[in-house]
Amino acid sequence: SRDDADIAMARLDALAACTDEPGRITRLAFSPALRDANARVLAWMREAGMAAGIDAAGNVVGRWEAETAGASAVMIGSHLDTVRDGGRYDGPLGVVAGIAVVERLRREGRRLPLAVEVIGFADEEGVRFGGSILGSAAVAGTLAPDWRERRDADGIDAATALRSFGVDPDGVGAASRRRDPPAAYLELHIEQGPALEDADVPLGCVTAIAGATRLLVTVDGTAGHAGTVPMRLRRDALAAAAECVLAVERLCAGAEAVGTVGHLRVAPDAVNVIPGRVRFSVDIRAAQDEVRTRLVDAALAEFQASARRRRVELAWQVTSRTETTPCSPRLVEALAGVLAGMGLPAPRLASGAGHDGIAVSAITEIGMLFLRCAGGISHHPAESVTVADVRLGIEALHRWSLALR
Amino acid sequence: SRDDADIAMARLDALAACTDEPGRITRLAFSPALRDANARVLAWMREAGMAAGIDAAGNVVGRWEAETAGASAVMIGSHLDTVRDGGRYDGPLGVVAGIAVVERLRREGRRLPLAVEVIGFADEEGVRFGGSILGSAAVAGTLAPDWRERRDADGIDAATALRSFGVDPDGVGAASRRRDPPAAYLELHIEQGPALEDADVPLGCVTAIAGATRLLVTVDGTAGHAGTVPMRLRRDALAAAAECVLAVERLCAGAEAVGTVGHLRVAPDAVNVIPGRVRFSVDIRAAQDEVRTRLVDAALAEFQASARRRRVELAWQVTSRTETTPCSPRLVEALAGVLAGMGLPAPRLASGAGHDGIAVSAITEIGMLFLRCAGGISHHPAESVTVADVRLGIEALHRWSLALR
Ligand SMILES: NC(=O)NCCC(=O)O
Ligand SMILES: NC(=O)NCCC(=O)O
Repeated sequence: SRDDADIAMARLDALAACTDEPGRITRLAFSPALRDANARVLAWMREAGMAAGIDAAGNVVGRWEAETAGASAVMIGSHLDTVRDGGRYDGPLGVVAGIAVVERLRREGRRLPLAVEVIGFADEEGVRFGGSILGSAAVAGTLAPDWRERRDADGIDAATALRSFGVDPDGVGAASRRRDPPAAYLELHIEQGPALEDADVPLGCVTAIAGATRLLVTVDGTAGHAGTVPMRLRRDALAAAAECVLAVERLCAGAEAVGTVGHLRVAPDAVNVIPGRVRFSVDIRAAQDEVRTRLVDAALAEFQASARRRRVELAWQVTSRTETTPCSPRLVEALAGVLAGMGLPAPRLASGAGHDGIAVSAITEIGMLFLRCAGGISHHPAESVTVADVRLGIEALHRWSLALR
Repeated sequence: SRDDADIAMARLDALAACTDEPGRITRLAFSPALRDANARVLAWMREAGMAAGIDAAGNVVGRWEAETAGASAVMIGSHLDTVRDGGRYDGPLGVVAGIAVVERLRREGRRLPLAVEVIGFADEEGVRFGGSILGSAAVAGTLAPDWRERRDADGIDAATALRSFGVDPDGVGAASRRRDPPAAYLELHIEQGPALEDADVPLGCVTAIAGATRLLVTVDGTAGHAGTVPMRLRRDALAAAAECVLAVERLCAGAEAVGTVGHLRVAPDAVNVIPGRVRFSVDIRAAQDEVRTRLVDAALAEFQASARRRRVELAWQVTSRTETTPCSPRLVEALAGVLAGMGLPAPRLASGAGHDGIAVSAITEIGMLFLRCAGGISHHPAESVTVADVRLGIEALHRWSLALR
């Protein structure tokens, strides 16, 4: 017989069909596909007995009332947007699991001292508006002053995107829960890394969301003819950038950190022209802020040494910086207790990926439960989890909610 | 009073105005701008008393008849096409200098044992049809069997381009001079490198045109999340490519050669995604073929070692290979004698850049005269020569032609 986990898996399939690219899962922030997904989630919330609607920032929110109406809530959620050509679990799993928790309360006819709210955030991946988490930032009341002007690849600004999504950009402030904060925010999310699978454990307690620093670096050398400029006279921007790429890798491999040069562009980019300019991104993350800042400084020092040696010009800007967001020790302990009660190990691990909890932590304590995923793969159609693990995840999330006051 | 060199400089200015990008010099092979340039050159040839026309491949050719009509010719020339946003001397200098030589013969009322032909080739830079030298290959009768199918960035194939240029692609064979080869081919060209300027010498004798091997290399790693995949589990295609870039540089710096990675493309090319695939070009040139082949082998061995160490897949193809084209020792000696007679040093140097002589060498002896250019800069609006050097260049080219039988 179909249980909560089977239903959750079927719902994840239904959400996977909400896409703007047939044959792929592509559901960018505030897209038509996300509007579809919101509509389905809204219907499931109402079926589960929740009062539900779309908030002033385009997030879908449902509420299962507490014993005492109007009591504060434990908020359970995740995001409904995806990367381009992504998977079906990163994000939606946490939303359908939240609904499953409420369905169980409804079946049991049970009210808790805290209300249970389930939320599906509208913009976490940051694919469309460059690293934004507009949905959860609106709930936290921490939207950047210039959020409206951020533009997507088609030149559409965020305000216009919200308007076509059906949300008034001038009313987004009303989504803020600063004056009515939830008592806690809980999120079930796939790990997106290999640690749980390596340890052969289905679930893990997240201790913190790693801070991240992103740089955009420009190297200016001198373009020249590939056939005529002697090696010793060259100021090759790509050779300099190659040293930087390897420096980031070497520094981060030697620390509790990850570092990535994911974007790199060469100009003029012709087979017989020495590269005159190269632009590349750097993304460095660590659970310890001082490890990250030390690595960023060390990387920049190596970049500068390399630039001096090669007589090229180096310029960089910090395009984003988030400090490490700790999970609430109280929530981590509660979750560890829950997992122990289920006879499961409770490994502690940090999240290398960013999550909505970074924003929500501005208004309440946050806790995160990680679920093992095949190969640690995410942001890819091959993203995969087992129904057995999802069953355990829903059970843990349910018990965790019950444990809170 | 205006002399040959002043007139040549004025003609180079006039050709610079033949462009498809106002404000820049952009005269790609078989473009409208090149048709303009051909028309001007044709007029100057006729003014200089030559029988002139556009040949069956779109090259402009003029003939100053010999003492005995129908005698074979010394051919003097260069190309009239340019790179995008190029300079005014790379190519056209050799054509206007050839016309100046004939004008002098006409002023002196002089016929030589050999006719003097001046040619402006229509496609040397290889910008439009990927490394092609269609104009001179047609004259040499060495067009590749598939030349018609080569496509430009707009998807226009070479046959269609010729047709819109006013040339019948089915008649191109008639441009071949295989059965009526010139007695020699002489070319005056800017050096495009810094050697003459460094040596404080206006002109140099080219001994050979360096051979070149070009590769297109693909590195396949595994894309992944920049925040969650531990460094030791990564198969980062860009980090592997960075090692290859530095290997090319190091190997060529340690040899009589140049090596360049000019083109490099990352996928997916996103700030928070580990690069899954990188594609890059390699261009290695040396005056000694065995130096070049040894360096190409050494580079590929290093690429493979790096790929093995990093568990990424490596694939490559040789996209072009030209052996070194020697200049005729007889012509080099004649030129050295001419320069000595002018009281000038006669440094010998190899050309790192490719030239029409590579193709023409299939049907006759070739000789090249290099002219100093500021900073060794070419393929750039800053390309620059002095009128005094051009005066010496025309004088040397004139004497060189007179010296041939
Ligand atoms: N969870 C997640 O993948 N967030 C995307 C942003 C990032 O961590 O790079
Ligand atoms: N002369 C010249 O710049 N030719 C262009 C082709 C090349 O050498 O890369």
